[in-house]
Amino acid sequence: MNHPSDALAHFELWRSTHQADVERALSTWVTADAPAGLGEAMRYAVLDGGKRLRPLLVLGTSEAVGGGRESALRAACAVELIHAYSLVHDDMPCMDNDVLRRGKPTVHVQFGEAQALLVGDALQALAFELLVPESGVEPQLGSTLCRLLARASGGQGMAGGQAVDLASIGLALDQTALEHMHRLKTGALLQASVMMGAACGAPDENATAELQRFGAALGLAFQVVDDVLDVTADAATLGKTAGKDAAADKPTFVSLMGLESAQAYADRLLGQAHLALQATGLPRVSPLHALTDWVGRRTH
Amino acid sequence: MNHPSDALAHFELWRSTHQADVERALSTWVTADAPAGLGEAMRYAVLDGGKRLRPLLVLGTSEAVGGGRESALRAACAVELIHAYSLVHDDMPCMDNDVLRRGKPTVHVQFGEAQALLVGDALQALAFELLVPESGVEPQLGSTLCRLLARASGGQGMAGGQAVDLASIGLALDQTALEHMHRLKTGALLQASVMMGAACGAPDENATAELQRFGAALGLAFQVVDDVLDVTADAATLGKTAGKDAAADKPTFVSLMGLESAQAYADRLLGQAHLALQATGLPRVSPLHALTDWVGRRTH
Repeated sequence: MNHPSDALAHFELWRSTHQADVERALSTWVTADAPAGLGEAMRYAVLDGGKRLRPLLVLGTSEAVGGGRESALRAACAVELIHAYSLVHDDMPCMDNDVLRRGKPTVHVQFGEAQALLVGDALQALAFELLVPESGVEPQLGSTLCRLLARASGGQGMAGGQAVDLASIGLALDQTALEHMHRLKTGALLQASVMMGAACGAPDENATAELQRFGAALGLAFQVVDDVLDVTADAATLGKTAGKDAAADKPTFVSLMGLESAQAYADRLLGQAHLALQATGLPRVSPLHALTDWVGRRTH
Repeated sequence: MNHPSDALAHFELWRSTHQADVERALSTWVTADAPAGLGEAMRYAVLDGGKRLRPLLVLGTSEAVGGGRESALRAACAVELIHAYSLVHDDMPCMDNDVLRRGKPTVHVQFGEAQALLVGDALQALAFELLVPESGVEPQLGSTLCRLLARASGGQGMAGGQAVDLASIGLALDQTALEHMHRLKTGALLQASVMMGAACGAPDENATAELQRFGAALGLAFQVVDDVLDVTADAATLGKTAGKDAAADKPTFVSLMGLESAQAYADRLLGQAHLALQATGLPRVSPLHALTDWVGRRTH
């Protein structure tokens, strides 16, 4: 395990195993039972696509703190459902008006706008439902997980960040304002993924604080990398429409600092994430280090 | 308290006191803190309007079973936030395309479609957040309340009912199909209001089962009354656009059974609700009886 390529192979195995677990769990929990085609549309929005970065962060963090498997898997899927609902609503004509997502027609293109609206709404409810089963998750933990998820996804988290994003189209944001928007819009849910994983175990105060820092740095790095990809990658690689942000006149880290500086900034943030992980003092953090590299590798 | 008019005056006091409590609590919990005008738009969607029937059902049931005040008030507001978000999304152009609600321009008319979408999303998250505070609600109870609310509002509850509603425009539904749709679309959340109030205390098995029946009968009665109002009332009385269902070629209890039979059916369901309440054997159910009459009084 000392050779880098061994470590990479080990991570790839960890990643594919955990992705398969998440895929299976999502397929079980997102049933086709909702009537009038809603269930099928929910499955279409959630299954067979996506990197599952957020679930992997939940599971990796939970393993690092010795968390319970069932709780962590439910938390992982709940975060992914919130992410999935936000994509469905974001893609709608009144928001980004996007027609391609993960290489497939977006939900409103496939099922109509009204159904897409309901798909997003129902996925959000299901996310919270997964965290509070009648058995399988201690109520104290379920309650904490709901709180973390609700705060990260609501008006002072993801939804708030999207409101700032809408309001900032065409504006010349400075880096502080841009970072604030992204800390809400994508950072809050990525950080919550880490903290929900942490809640599944019982990390000490120092480890908790460092995991917070890890999640914050990784969350922001993810967005900087995303902005870089938006100008360097094509639709076939991305599985979604490329160049959308520039076309929509949205401020990005690339438009603000230039491509090379944005790439360097991403690397710096990823370095901070690695340092915070080391500082946790937790023994089983190598999948989290590897996930951090994985987020970064998308740039190069 | 034996004279009917005394009982009515007593209920009016109970209702106005509890409505004021709910209004104050909503104003405290739905803050303007969400950025880029989202907080203000959330407050616009929630405050200063509405009968607060669902919160009153939560509070009335909780009092009947000796539930804790703080938990019940949080549950009451959470249910109302779910109801409010569903109205915001329902009114959007891709759904009912309604411009008037509670006598005011609908949220998307006032703030734009994208903001309305986010308002609904953020209100849903806030509903769950209210149920799991760091203190004030026992985690076991918070977890139960989240489960009841998520199930009632998701794909196999309210959102599912809306999908059936969309799919049934122009179809000749029979009474069974129409009732199934309404049990999901409006009944599930009304019944959940009762059961969330019940969860705040510890009713015995019989009382729990009868409260389920009470909630189901009242929930359906509410919808039948709503259909009657849609053809008999005008926009000024309703505070929303009248005659919408008929105009949209949506099946209603009135279109199915005629106005008089629909009114008689509403009365029969209200009678069932009263009987179920009596059968609970609970001592303090007079506000719930009065709420049942209040729902029915809207017809006459």
